[in-house]
Amino acid sequence: MTDNRLARQLAFLTEIDRAKTVLRQTLLCDRSRRENDAEHSWHLAMCASVLAEYAPPGVDLGRVLTMALVHDLVEIDAGDTFAYDEAGNATKEARERAAADRIYAMLPAEQGAYYRALWEEFDAMETPDARFAAACDRLQPFLNNLATGGHTWKLGHVRLSQVKRRIEPVCGLAPALRAFVEENLRDAVARGWLIDA
Amino acid sequence: MTDNRLARQLAFLTEIDRAKTVLRQTLLCDRSRRENDAEHSWHLAMCASVLAEYAPPGVDLGRVLTMALVHDLVEIDAGDTFAYDEAGNATKEARERAAADRIYAMLPAEQGAYYRALWEEFDAMETPDARFAAACDRLQPFLNNLATGGHTWKLGHVRLSQVKRRIEPVCGLAPALRAFVEENLRDAVARGWLIDA
Repeated sequence: MTDNRLARQLAFLTEIDRAKTVLRQTLLCDRSRRENDAEHSWHLAMCASVLAEYAPPGVDLGRVLTMALVHDLVEIDAGDTFAYDEAGNATKEARERAAADRIYAMLPAEQGAYYRALWEEFDAMETPDARFAAACDRLQPFLNNLATGGHTWKLGHVRLSQVKRRIEPVCGLAPALRAFVEENLRDAVARGWLIDA
Repeated sequence: MTDNRLARQLAFLTEIDRAKTVLRQTLLCDRSRRENDAEHSWHLAMCASVLAEYAPPGVDLGRVLTMALVHDLVEIDAGDTFAYDEAGNATKEARERAAADRIYAMLPAEQGAYYRALWEEFDAMETPDARFAAACDRLQPFLNNLATGGHTWKLGHVRLSQVKRRIEPVCGLAPALRAFVEENLRDAVARGWLIDA
């Protein structure tokens, strides 16, 4: 018989395979299909690793990577909520809390509590680790949008002011990142990918 | 104009989106389709995080997570080589070296060298970090195989002795993991998922 603690950990690892089937609005850069949560979490973690030099002092990259890996697990039950979907965002918190209650309870108690606390920290965007992780979570779909002709912006009839608000944590990391974002937002408006309002 | 260093980092982050299109033999646990490299890398990193307590003393989990995230990037050019494909494995090293030459050169030099060294360390399986990462790289498809009726074992007419050799790094982590593996290998043979040889 497999040890009970290990059995719970392995059942959790099998359960979270379902993150590969939770679709986001974002397209892959080759526009072949929509991205899923597992791919997004990997790509976000890669953003955090590659751009670690722009993180504020004191950020613990290992914690940020772990946050990136788990930050969307609740969507296995709660589904992805499009950033610019106001109705969906009104019910998001309750749906995700119920999901966290089920999914993290699969693990041994102290381990489930550890990941749940990391997810709550990510969502609150208050600590330096969470703010850096959240910035990367916003940069990754921004890059995919640039590569796919502003796909989700056009899809959601998104306004420049909405994207500016959402991408501000990226701009705050470094002047070079602010310049990159501003240049590409001007270009996105000029191309008609974003509504100039 | 975007700063050149940042521009190279962002071009790399856009390029590696292609890992989401590199298919492996492994199926998702729901059997709906084949898994891709980005999903696999995320799932492997989750295995490393959840099972960190079984890692040998001195393992640096942050390094292991980074190794997991980048270990298959060379497959963007070189493609996935099925673990039990002997012909494919004969040319794998040269194909992957050429891929690393191109992909890591997209980054600023010292950063490309850092990731390339991590990938080489992973592949050599000699350091404690690399051995733990490699064990997780073998456990993840093992779990998916158990969930999908031994899919890749049946597909490749794989023998029990081949899987035993490949999964040994997992068994070496902890007696509980060895017991789990042995129990499930006996079961896989009994079900006809593996050839008893």
